[in-house]
Amino acid sequence: MNLGPGKEFDRIRAIIARVAEITGDGSGLGDDCALIPLGATTLALSIDSSVEDVHFRTDWLDFKEIGFRAAGSAFSDLAADGASPIGVLVSIGLPTADGKEGGDTDPAAEIMAGVATMARNLAARVLGGDLTRADKYSVDVCVLGTADHPVRRSGAREGDALWVTGYLGGAALALERLRDGQRMSTPLRNRFACPEPRIAAGRWLAQHGATAMIDISDGLSADAQHLSAASGVGIEINLEHIPCWEGVEAMAAVASGEEFELLVTMPPTFGDASASAFRGETGMELSRIGTCMRSTGGRRGGVRLLDRNKPVPLPQGYDHFASPQ
Amino acid sequence: MNLGPGKEFDRIRAIIARVAEITGDGSGLGDDCALIPLGATTLALSIDSSVEDVHFRTDWLDFKEIGFRAAGSAFSDLAADGASPIGVLVSIGLPTADGKEGGDTDPAAEIMAGVATMARNLAARVLGGDLTRADKYSVDVCVLGTADHPVRRSGAREGDALWVTGYLGGAALALERLRDGQRMSTPLRNRFACPEPRIAAGRWLAQHGATAMIDISDGLSADAQHLSAASGVGIEINLEHIPCWEGVEAMAAVASGEEFELLVTMPPTFGDASASAFRGETGMELSRIGTCMRSTGGRRGGVRLLDRNKPVPLPQGYDHFASPQ
Repeated sequence: MNLGPGKEFDRIRAIIARVAEITGDGSGLGDDCALIPLGATTLALSIDSSVEDVHFRTDWLDFKEIGFRAAGSAFSDLAADGASPIGVLVSIGLPTADGKEGGDTDPAAEIMAGVATMARNLAARVLGGDLTRADKYSVDVCVLGTADHPVRRSGAREGDALWVTGYLGGAALALERLRDGQRMSTPLRNRFACPEPRIAAGRWLAQHGATAMIDISDGLSADAQHLSAASGVGIEINLEHIPCWEGVEAMAAVASGEEFELLVTMPPTFGDASASAFRGETGMELSRIGTCMRSTGGRRGGVRLLDRNKPVPLPQGYDHFASPQ
Repeated sequence: MNLGPGKEFDRIRAIIARVAEITGDGSGLGDDCALIPLGATTLALSIDSSVEDVHFRTDWLDFKEIGFRAAGSAFSDLAADGASPIGVLVSIGLPTADGKEGGDTDPAAEIMAGVATMARNLAARVLGGDLTRADKYSVDVCVLGTADHPVRRSGAREGDALWVTGYLGGAALALERLRDGQRMSTPLRNRFACPEPRIAAGRWLAQHGATAMIDISDGLSADAQHLSAASGVGIEINLEHIPCWEGVEAMAAVASGEEFELLVTMPPTFGDASASAFRGETGMELSRIGTCMRSTGGRRGGVRLLDRNKPVPLPQGYDHFASPQ
């Protein structure tokens, strides 16, 4: 699996190589989900970790939101492969002095209540879990689903168009407001606190010929590079076509991470009429923002950002590993 | 799901109740694995967390051993349900100042090398993973398998005999030596450092009529209470029949946690000839240590420990949540 550039991804590449040394196979690693053909269907699995002071702060979110958000982020990986959720397993790390002795609600129970709410919203089940003592709160979520038309990152072809669901930049704006201790509208706060995995959208796109798909967790710019590297195509993105959250500049929208919208390539036959059908059936926006070109090679995966036909530099991706909140 | 007594399990009971409030169903929770019928087979999934200074110390184990042990502990849950492994997903928490900048091997890559070695030993695949910044090392492992004859904790019946694989007490003895900084033999050290999940044994027992099964992670005494509570039977254990690791007293063997041996109930038709067949086919010991009785009710699940027919008090279980190493 080819990933886009970045120190975090260099490290993952080295880890995959070390695993392949031992098992003789690292080919399936690095995508949003593991895909395992089983009988008449394909299982999709993903694991996703949320850690206090890296992914969330307990003074920004209540424990139910922390669980809801962690589960949503994991289910978003199923959406990115066009999968339907079956259920979720959760491992929770809990500080020993976490207040539950005081007769208040148990943070672990509230985190699981958030996970359960997200699961119920998606008609999925809470399958199991584990509790561990830890210095900080952590929520590791493993999701399971099935995909009749699994979509990887690697199937984009020259001539395919690049589309994105929803509006981008709200997550970064909400995070900025939280950091500054500013008030904000509920819809904006929810872009950070209660992200909705695009399960129905992912399934619809998979059924309608999606060639490659990824959820926007590292930022559109970085995730387009992953898709480009995995598919071996160049990608041109038109900045003026980026659907921006209200009050967000296009360059900020392109850099914003943990958006959990879907970035997808569709064949040339997928046009405006198909996009209208998508909107009608899912109630979501779908915007054409670029085109897949012949690969220009190289590690940067050939992603070019154009502002009214003038090349502009790609913004830095959202590096979960380097950016404390 | 009924669990045995203990503060850790009270907390888990409360969490399961909170989840059931929201989803309307908590029935499958609390067993070793989640079991999901799918097509002609049953999927088995489990998540298991290992945290630095709770489950391991970096001055006791190298990073490859940390990965191997964490994966082994998770695969042991598949063994306890009689499942065959398919693969493993791993979420790793890494301290930022973890030395990998110094040009040395990357701890994350070594942890994954240990996971990959365990997976290869069991003909399973490394399916995916996630990296997160954290204050301490943590390894969350989610395992996937299939079970043609899934065995839960809840199927034991009056008259079934209680059996256990291998020899007990080595894990606690090794841990004691590690704590005291004493040298020990490699086989003893491996009881803690490189536990082997009893996959083949679990599958054999499932195919030969096991009515209930659990892996010994909380200690035989506590795990017998889980099995008793889940099945609604009383259990009498004969202390003099406990197969002890060399140099370990029976009471210490009964209390020793993270043994990863299997505690299993077999129908009365399963006798000495069957146990011999097990030994011949798996190369492992199997000892009859007790009997399932009519339930005496109550939260202690009716587990009685007998030393040559004289009742003796049950030792305290191994509480992962209360006992730092």
